[in-house]
Amino acid sequence: MSRKKANEPPAGDPASPINPDLQRRRTGRLSPEAYAEGVLAGDRVLLSKAITLIESTLAADQALAGRVVDLCLPHRVPSRRIGISGAPGAGKSTFIEALGKVILSDGGNLAVLTIDPSSRITGGSILGDKTRMETLSLDERAFIRPSPAGDTLGGVARKTRETILLCEAAGYSDIIVETVGVGQSETTVQSMVDCFLLLLLPGAGDELQGIKRGIVEVADLVAVNKADGDGLTFARKAQAAYRNALHLFPPKTSGWTPEVLTCSALNNTGIGAIWQVITTFFDTVQTSGFMAENRREQTRFWFHDALDAGLRNLVKIHPKARERLPALEKEVLEGTRSPLGAAEEILGILGGGDLRI
Amino acid sequence: MSRKKANEPPAGDPASPINPDLQRRRTGRLSPEAYAEGVLAGDRVLLSKAITLIESTLAADQALAGRVVDLCLPHRVPSRRIGISGAPGAGKSTFIEALGKVILSDGGNLAVLTIDPSSRITGGSILGDKTRMETLSLDERAFIRPSPAGDTLGGVARKTRETILLCEAAGYSDIIVETVGVGQSETTVQSMVDCFLLLLLPGAGDELQGIKRGIVEVADLVAVNKADGDGLTFARKAQAAYRNALHLFPPKTSGWTPEVLTCSALNNTGIGAIWQVITTFFDTVQTSGFMAENRREQTRFWFHDALDAGLRNLVKIHPKARERLPALEKEVLEGTRSPLGAAEEILGILGGGDLRI
Repeated sequence: MSRKKANEPPAGDPASPINPDLQRRRTGRLSPEAYAEGVLAGDRVLLSKAITLIESTLAADQALAGRVVDLCLPHRVPSRRIGISGAPGAGKSTFIEALGKVILSDGGNLAVLTIDPSSRITGGSILGDKTRMETLSLDERAFIRPSPAGDTLGGVARKTRETILLCEAAGYSDIIVETVGVGQSETTVQSMVDCFLLLLLPGAGDELQGIKRGIVEVADLVAVNKADGDGLTFARKAQAAYRNALHLFPPKTSGWTPEVLTCSALNNTGIGAIWQVITTFFDTVQTSGFMAENRREQTRFWFHDALDAGLRNLVKIHPKARERLPALEKEVLEGTRSPLGAAEEILGILGGGDLRI
Repeated sequence: MSRKKANEPPAGDPASPINPDLQRRRTGRLSPEAYAEGVLAGDRVLLSKAITLIESTLAADQALAGRVVDLCLPHRVPSRRIGISGAPGAGKSTFIEALGKVILSDGGNLAVLTIDPSSRITGGSILGDKTRMETLSLDERAFIRPSPAGDTLGGVARKTRETILLCEAAGYSDIIVETVGVGQSETTVQSMVDCFLLLLLPGAGDELQGIKRGIVEVADLVAVNKADGDGLTFARKAQAAYRNALHLFPPKTSGWTPEVLTCSALNNTGIGAIWQVITTFFDTVQTSGFMAENRREQTRFWFHDALDAGLRNLVKIHPKARERLPALEKEVLEGTRSPLGAAEEILGILGGGDLRI
C-alpha cells in the first residue's frame, strides 16, 4: 500500500488546501461523509484515499467505499471520457502528456487513469507513470492514477469505473483512461469511455503486432504518432492506408466517421488538431443524443457485469460447488461430459438455475 | 412445435432407413438410450427428434436431452466446424448450397445449422431454408436444421452447441454454422467453429452496412460473392481492397493469414478454390496443434458461459431478488446508485458474493 502513497502530494503541498483538522483526519479511516466532502471539495489527497478504499480488498474498506461513491454520485460534473490505447512503444505517455497540456490550456481539469493488469508483473508502473508524465503530474489541475497492482482485468475495470465516478465528483471534466492495447483491455475500456482513440506507430502491419485484432475498427480516431524526422513519410503512408481500410468498414452506430490523423507527441505537432477532432466528436454525439444513450447502456452494462462477477463468486464461496468445479471442468475438457450438463450440476448444488428454458 | 416437424422427412421418405419398430417408437418419448442409439446409427428422424428435445422448454425434455447428449459424446466423429456469416442479400444460402455440394462430392457428410434469433420475428425461416437449399436438403448425406424459433441469441447458441455435438455423433464430418451477420451472433458463432468465413458483396463500404464492425478482422477467409457479369470488376476491386485492409491488421493467434477470394455462388465459379483454401486452413491448424487447443478453450468457454447463464437465472428465480432488480436498475440508470453498490445489494439478497476482492 505504501506505493499508492507515492501518487499523493506531500503533506505540505501548497497546491492542496490543507487545514489542521483534515490533516488529523488523514491518519485513520474517516466517515463516508468526510471522504465525500473532501472529494467534492476537490481535495486530491482525500480523492486518492477514497480511491485507495475502492481498490482495497478489506471488507470494511469496501463497505466504506460503496457509501462514499453513493454520496458523491449526484454531484458529478459533466465530463468527457476518452479511452487511449496503443501498443507498448507507441508513445502513449508522451502523447497523453502533450494532449493533457492542450486540455488544461483549453480550461479543462484532467484525470488520467490506467488499466494495465500486467503492471503487477513489473510492479514499476507507478514510478513509470510519474516519470513519464512529469509536467502533468506536477499540475494541480491534473490527477494521475495508475491501476491497482496485483489485480485481474475484470477487477481493475470494476474499480476504474468507480474511480471515474469519484473523479467526476471531484470536478475533473476530462477523464483519460489509458490501456496498453495488447489484450482484452480495449473491449473493457470501450465500456467506460465516450470516445476511443487508437495511437499507432507509422508503417503498415508489422508494427502493430501488439495490437489486438478488431481494435482498429472500433476506434473513433486513429492517431499515427512519431510523424517526425525520417518517420514523417512513413506516417503519411500509414495515414492513407488506415483511411482506406476504415472506409471499408460499416458506419459506426454513433453516426461518427472515424478520422485518421498524424502527430508527433515528441515535437508537440498535430496534437491541437487531434484535440479539435475530439471536441468535434463530442459536439456531434452530444447533439445527436448518442452519448447520453451510450452512457445509459454502459451504466446498465456496469451493473450487470458487476452482478455477473458476484454471481460467479457464489460458486467459489459455496464449499460443495467449489469442490466439484475442477472435476467437472476436467470431464468437460476430456469430452466425457457435456458443458451444459456439467453447468447444470453446479447450478443444482447452488439450488436452482434452469439452463434450457 | 408443429413447425419443427416441417424439417423432418415424411414417414415414407426412402432416404431414411425406417423399420416398423422405430416407427412405433416415434410416437412418444423414447429412452435416452433409444435416442442415442438412433443418433449413432445416423437415423436422421431420431437425430431431429433429439435436437427437438434440446430445443424444448419442458423440464422432462431437458433432462432427457442432457442424458442423450452425454451418451452420444464419446462417439463423435472428427469434424470440421465452419462458421459462415454475411449480410442479408449476400447470397449465403446459394453459397452454402454450392459449397455443400463440393463438400459432399469430396466425401463429407454435411450438417448445416443456423443461428438467427431474428427468425422468431418473420417465423418463415424454416420454409425459407428448405426452399433456398433445395438440392442439399434432398441429399441424404446432408442435414439442415434452422434455429429454434422464439429464442434469444444466448439460448440459441447454447442449443446450437449441443446440436453440433449430436450431429458429430451422427457421423456428420462437416458442420456449417450459418449466421446472419448483423449483430452479436458472429462473436457467438466464433466460439463454436474452427474456421470463420465472411461472405461479402462486391463494392466497398456501402454494401456492408449490415455487417457488424470487427467481423472482417476476425475472418479466416473473406469470399466476395456475385463475381459474375457486371459484378466481376467490382468483385476484383473489393478483393484487392480487402487484401490491403487485412494486411494492416496484426497476425492471428492461429498463425493463419486470412485470404480474400472471389466467387459466384449463382454460376458455381470459385467455390472449389474456396473449399481448397478451407481444407488448407484445416491442414495448417491441425498440424500446428492450434485447432485442438482452440477447441479446448471453446469447450471451457461453453461450460462457463452456460454456468453464467444459469447463475443469472438464480436472480430471476429468487422472489426477493427478482422483485428488487428493476428498482435497483432504475436507480443505477438515474445515477442515484452506483452500479457496484446495486449489484452488491442483489448479491446480499442471494446470500453472498463479494465484488471488490
